[in-house]
Amino acid sequence: MRLSVSEIKKLTALKKKKYRHSEDLFLCEGVRLLEEAQKSNFYPEKVYYSKASLNERGQKLVQLLKQNKIPIYDIGNKEIERVISTKSSQGIVGVFKPRKYNLEQQLNQGTRKLLVCDNINDPGNLGTLMRSAAAFGFSPVITSTKTVEINNPKTMRASMGACFNLPYIEKQPPELIVEKLKEFGFKLLLADVKGKILNNLNSFSGKVALIIGSEADGGSDTFEQNADYVVRIPMSQNVESLNAAMAGTALMFWLNNSERMPK
Amino acid sequence: MRLSVSEIKKLTALKKKKYRHSEDLFLCEGVRLLEEAQKSNFYPEKVYYSKASLNERGQKLVQLLKQNKIPIYDIGNKEIERVISTKSSQGIVGVFKPRKYNLEQQLNQGTRKLLVCDNINDPGNLGTLMRSAAAFGFSPVITSTKTVEINNPKTMRASMGACFNLPYIEKQPPELIVEKLKEFGFKLLLADVKGKILNNLNSFSGKVALIIGSEADGGSDTFEQNADYVVRIPMSQNVESLNAAMAGTALMFWLNNSERMPK
Repeated sequence: MRLSVSEIKKLTALKKKKYRHSEDLFLCEGVRLLEEAQKSNFYPEKVYYSKASLNERGQKLVQLLKQNKIPIYDIGNKEIERVISTKSSQGIVGVFKPRKYNLEQQLNQGTRKLLVCDNINDPGNLGTLMRSAAAFGFSPVITSTKTVEINNPKTMRASMGACFNLPYIEKQPPELIVEKLKEFGFKLLLADVKGKILNNLNSFSGKVALIIGSEADGGSDTFEQNADYVVRIPMSQNVESLNAAMAGTALMFWLNNSERMPK
Repeated sequence: MRLSVSEIKKLTALKKKKYRHSEDLFLCEGVRLLEEAQKSNFYPEKVYYSKASLNERGQKLVQLLKQNKIPIYDIGNKEIERVISTKSSQGIVGVFKPRKYNLEQQLNQGTRKLLVCDNINDPGNLGTLMRSAAAFGFSPVITSTKTVEINNPKTMRASMGACFNLPYIEKQPPELIVEKLKEFGFKLLLADVKGKILNNLNSFSGKVALIIGSEADGGSDTFEQNADYVVRIPMSQNVESLNAAMAGTALMFWLNNSERMPK
């Protein structure tokens, strides 16, 4: 099938954040990520590929998508290269409508641990934090206004599919996040290098919202002013800080396992 | 100063691993990394820059390098762009001779916690593991034969300077690593998704070598066969694994803090 010029334009426009928002669609590239989406029962609106560029695994994926009745089009090598943004995307790209989650509904579902990503501007870090949140049962993930998009291609890749099945609520003002978390009885645990050394997290038996801010800029004032606990991860003196994704992972690991620690 | 064609050739050759080895030199780009090297009293053999491309922070660095009597040359914008490999390197690059550490000497220095990186082929992951190792006092870092280079530009960037002050011994055969660690009384703790759930790491009062393998390919057989403990990080059932850097960070954090946990 040959795409018309206007169809190509529409697709390539989705590489830009502005158009992702206005169209309420996003692109997701590569065999592995599209496989992950399938596993999470998250189906694309359409898929474009180039048969000539696909490896064997990609061909299996195309079969699976066809079985699942996804509209899928072989548009040839030249055209697919205009649509994709990375060389490693193996000649296949899907167009998805973002899943929408409601904050109050998520907080109402009995969740006891969740993650807030505040001012995280590195998409790799955000994706890694989502992957770790999925691993340690922190759900939903809430991001603040200034955090990078979850449907950024790099975020999706680093999340290893967690972006497809972990509920998230994006781009919320810090004031609203604080208000809702307090309303639903969450303790706010803010990670910050100026905080107190972590001591006894076993005492965290209640509902906890872990807040991870940007390494470079720290967290929003709103979270600093409203945190119930500000904690620092103990580390060597000559090291200034951990990568934000590392700090978040270490703390989620600890919080998730405190019941396993000897009492 | 204008570099001769052969000088330019020599420099750009250092972008290739082969020449880094044969020349026993490596390049390190960008203001921040060169600042980190200075902080660690790790001085370049030579520095090349383009005054026109430097920001204010870069200009301060050039002053500092001059004060420290480092041979430093303004070679202009066109030439610097041929030498550097990333756009974000801000017009400055240093040529360094790698620091050399001896494995036995390091093991003899009373270290009680160290990190082994096995088959880690993503330079970002290796750098992040080094940064976390520095944060949690795991020293030295030992890498196995198949692990990516520490002086790879991406490894250095992700390590945030840990590559300059954390002792490391690179590219060792797994058999030799195991032999030396056992000789010096280390318990081998291998992280593996097939391992046992971590339970009570408080019992780790002795010397411990944490071994982190590649996510994709797992660890070398030698480590699997010789590990004293094979542990798995407890996580949600629908998540297959953590990023290797995350798994390593979480475990180093735990091992470093077990004495803080309630007994």
